[in-house]
Amino acid sequence: MKASQFLFATLKETPSDADIVSSQLMVRAGLIRKIASGLYIWLPMGLRVLQKVERIVREEMQNVGAQEVLMPMTQPAELWQTTGRFDDYGPELLRFKDRHDRDFVLGPTHEEVITNLAQGELRSYKQLPITFFQIQGKFRDEIRPRFGVMRAREFTMKDAYSFHVDQVSLAKTYHDMYEAYTRIFTRLGLDFRAVQADTGSIGGFASHEFHVLADSGEDDIAFSDSSDYAANVELAESISFNMAERQPPKQEREDVLTEGMTTCKMVAEHLDIPLANTVKTLIVHGHKEDGTPQLIAVVLRGDHQLNTIKAEKIEEANVPLTLASDEELKAAGLHKGYIGVDLDMPVFVDRSAATLSDFVAGANKVNKHTIGMNWARDASITRIVDVRNVQEGDPSPDGKGTLKIKRGIEVGHIFQLGDKYSQAMNATVSGEDGKPVTMMMGCYGIGVSRIIAAAIEQNNDENGIMWPQTPTVEDSIAPFEVAIIPMKSKEETVMQTATALYEELKAQGVNVLLDDRNERPGVKFADLELIGIPHRIVVSDRNLAEGKFEYVNRRESEKQMLSREEVMAKASSK
Amino acid sequence: MKASQFLFATLKETPSDADIVSSQLMVRAGLIRKIASGLYIWLPMGLRVLQKVERIVREEMQNVGAQEVLMPMTQPAELWQTTGRFDDYGPELLRFKDRHDRDFVLGPTHEEVITNLAQGELRSYKQLPITFFQIQGKFRDEIRPRFGVMRAREFTMKDAYSFHVDQVSLAKTYHDMYEAYTRIFTRLGLDFRAVQADTGSIGGFASHEFHVLADSGEDDIAFSDSSDYAANVELAESISFNMAERQPPKQEREDVLTEGMTTCKMVAEHLDIPLANTVKTLIVHGHKEDGTPQLIAVVLRGDHQLNTIKAEKIEEANVPLTLASDEELKAAGLHKGYIGVDLDMPVFVDRSAATLSDFVAGANKVNKHTIGMNWARDASITRIVDVRNVQEGDPSPDGKGTLKIKRGIEVGHIFQLGDKYSQAMNATVSGEDGKPVTMMMGCYGIGVSRIIAAAIEQNNDENGIMWPQTPTVEDSIAPFEVAIIPMKSKEETVMQTATALYEELKAQGVNVLLDDRNERPGVKFADLELIGIPHRIVVSDRNLAEGKFEYVNRRESEKQMLSREEVMAKASSK
Repeated sequence: MKASQFLFATLKETPSDADIVSSQLMVRAGLIRKIASGLYIWLPMGLRVLQKVERIVREEMQNVGAQEVLMPMTQPAELWQTTGRFDDYGPELLRFKDRHDRDFVLGPTHEEVITNLAQGELRSYKQLPITFFQIQGKFRDEIRPRFGVMRAREFTMKDAYSFHVDQVSLAKTYHDMYEAYTRIFTRLGLDFRAVQADTGSIGGFASHEFHVLADSGEDDIAFSDSSDYAANVELAESISFNMAERQPPKQEREDVLTEGMTTCKMVAEHLDIPLANTVKTLIVHGHKEDGTPQLIAVVLRGDHQLNTIKAEKIEEANVPLTLASDEELKAAGLHKGYIGVDLDMPVFVDRSAATLSDFVAGANKVNKHTIGMNWARDASITRIVDVRNVQEGDPSPDGKGTLKIKRGIEVGHIFQLGDKYSQAMNATVSGEDGKPVTMMMGCYGIGVSRIIAAAIEQNNDENGIMWPQTPTVEDSIAPFEVAIIPMKSKEETVMQTATALYEELKAQGVNVLLDDRNERPGVKFADLELIGIPHRIVVSDRNLAEGKFEYVNRRESEKQMLSREEVMAKASSK
Repeated sequence: MKASQFLFATLKETPSDADIVSSQLMVRAGLIRKIASGLYIWLPMGLRVLQKVERIVREEMQNVGAQEVLMPMTQPAELWQTTGRFDDYGPELLRFKDRHDRDFVLGPTHEEVITNLAQGELRSYKQLPITFFQIQGKFRDEIRPRFGVMRAREFTMKDAYSFHVDQVSLAKTYHDMYEAYTRIFTRLGLDFRAVQADTGSIGGFASHEFHVLADSGEDDIAFSDSSDYAANVELAESISFNMAERQPPKQEREDVLTEGMTTCKMVAEHLDIPLANTVKTLIVHGHKEDGTPQLIAVVLRGDHQLNTIKAEKIEEANVPLTLASDEELKAAGLHKGYIGVDLDMPVFVDRSAATLSDFVAGANKVNKHTIGMNWARDASITRIVDVRNVQEGDPSPDGKGTLKIKRGIEVGHIFQLGDKYSQAMNATVSGEDGKPVTMMMGCYGIGVSRIIAAAIEQNNDENGIMWPQTPTVEDSIAPFEVAIIPMKSKEETVMQTATALYEELKAQGVNVLLDDRNERPGVKFADLELIGIPHRIVVSDRNLAEGKFEYVNRRESEKQMLSREEVMAKASSK
């Protein structure tokens, strides 16, 4: 492509309404333009990237035997009424009436349409398993569209749906999809993790989210540095309690003066002991088996944070979890800041706190803490529970390596749906015994347009976008792989040499741009860095005289003077 | 592709709501499924065809330097308010409100969005001309969606928009687009015509419609058998009046008895003369220059049909054209069925009628006609006009060949828009002199999904779809080019040979299907004919014994027994 025949819509200024770096860079590099809140045009530069991502996603879907279809974006409300979602789905579901006053929706997802299709077309278990996918525009009427194409209203999604005669078959396709997703994000050169997701709302079937790791993510992801274990921090299990880790008592129990020291940190500093050797006790509202209200205690190590979601899983705790008030503490004879673990109420102890010995706790007396505390000898445990957030450096719960924590951007989600939709829509096939079987379903989404924003969040510097380094150059999603810049010259040789290089690379199938725009070199360099073209080759009088080309790699930034042969090799490498 | 791993959704019965043959065949062949009035799913079999058409369209757009973009389907109403179309556009424009009660539309077209983009991004005449295109879903809320995907509500369209500094540049791009469209429909193997369209509503700029010729078309197209002249019948000019064609009078004028013969046909039969030697006179409402009402006469040859659109262009005629009532005729002293051409009112004579001599007309007396009538000698002409429909066999108005008339399906439309949108949206660039210039625009549409229906209307037989014969096999839009059917056999050789053939063709890049479904051969043959696979190869025990393969071409239907080499050659030919 010659740059003079291509829309460069780069901007020097950061648009005031672009709220994260990927959104700023996508607008500035001329990949997208906003036409209204959450609605974007993909400009020629951006669409090249989008189509490259689409190609990889499509190939991997085909590789696992998924068949491509195209469903309409507008869907009749009746289908959504059958599953109850016409009423249940929030205002993100855009509902409208056509000219005949019939109800329709603008599809945020297509479970109803595809299940309706399956119900009509699939008759026998012999046709199963079968998986359909589409790459298509979706609409979600977000209350506050933000983060550019990351949380837009109209966006491109790959959605796939599989149909099965039983759970075993569903699990197999689910596994294939998991592998396909892993290949997609690997081919895209992204640092990502497959995260086991909370399936509470869907009903106990497996579900994984695929997160691209980037500081601007909306979720905290804990993952092992030595295995593929990954989980949302709020859901990540902390390692199980291991009795062998608890040492026998060495110290005697003794109360010490800790005047005004109401936090573990103050106490640990005062006593010059590790914070991890102290515990804190939280008194929360709970109830007995018969429902009678009672206070309960939750004990954590001084250096750990309570995880409310986990704590709410304690049967005796009230939901939502609420702390006892100062008055209630007083009434129970407890002193805020000095509450111990030897208590006249159920005591739930976090796994880590339960392995301590010779630890420090409140003394249940004002201005005093107890040192040399030991479980069993000095205080009893009602139940050992997992109630804390995992933290960086924790052992991975799968026993392999230690945990790291990073923010993640969800770019894919795979679900085992079970029969939620097929049941509601009566999607059955005749089974092996001739009797009707309600099909089991899986659904598998990828935010195709969102991937691009996530890739940029993960790969950028002060000069602009850097596209992910993909395992093969063919899978690079940079809009152009190589830019050739002929410097202004009185000699025709410069343009001729640049053009010859351009034609040769093009003939080799390299995605190359000849920057023949009538702009100053500084403007071109800045544009190409902003857009993130991986390889930059400058052709000039001076260098040609020495038979050299100036080469810069977007990720390295120092200039190299290379021969034609060397520069050709660089340009066709990844 | 193995058929066992692909959704065959063929139907034996014609769906009751499929109203034309393409719609019936597309549903029966399992290309599409209807989910609501005017809303269709493209099944895997159909989407393969749609994507093949898209590829050809995309390539030809790129060939003329058009840059691909992707605009959202949902568009803010403000843009449409700027051009006035939010109010002017009929109920086909689906308007809706988002959750914040803001007005939006579901795009039936994108002039407003692209002009808004051009207004923001284009600054200098140096950036022009520039053309953008997209291939994308559109929505038109048709009052009565029909003809399957031909007149659906949601459909795939290629829309392109060009921007220019002046009319000369617009005309050049328009011409390039005309050529690109010609290449597209030629590559698709369609019998089509580029038809000059009525640009009345757009303002005098050029406009062409591209029609695929097929009996089920909604428009009558007249086209030359020897040139590329083509026009909508309602707009096609009949050849100009040529005085040299009018013979001098040979007969004397004479009234003859034609009792009860009120039509030209009756009179011609009675007198045993060609119908083309008679004329008919229509008396319609008109007005004088000052507006005073008057009756006027329009004279046509007896074998010609009045073209109302043309007649309404007679300045003295009232619009809409209305015939005088029986009472008005009586009051004017005229006798219905016997009206002549020698009249006391303006007489407008069609070009063909004006070249007659010694013709037969009404005698202005009950039960009488006049033979031996001649213009000038017996009656005077107020003005010679073009007021008839052209008919098959007429000389082409461009002087080359004669006209044929066929029905056409509009699949493309190119317009020179001028500055209608750019003016309304203030889309200017700085001109060569630094002063702002309002850009000139062109717009260019192709009904991508409609092409498929049109191709089937033009290519089908009683057994199903026949895909168009494209100039190259690479451009074939058949979902599969070749089907290989291994007959059931106790010998593994049959399946092995079929599979080897399949793998070899696949390796050659041939789009081949191995029909390994567990179905009777009759079912497979019927399915493959319905779907229109061009080449069918049957592998059976009996034929293998002789080293032969059974080959059938979809368009020929007789079986041929061929060697492996011969069958390979057939399978990779067009």
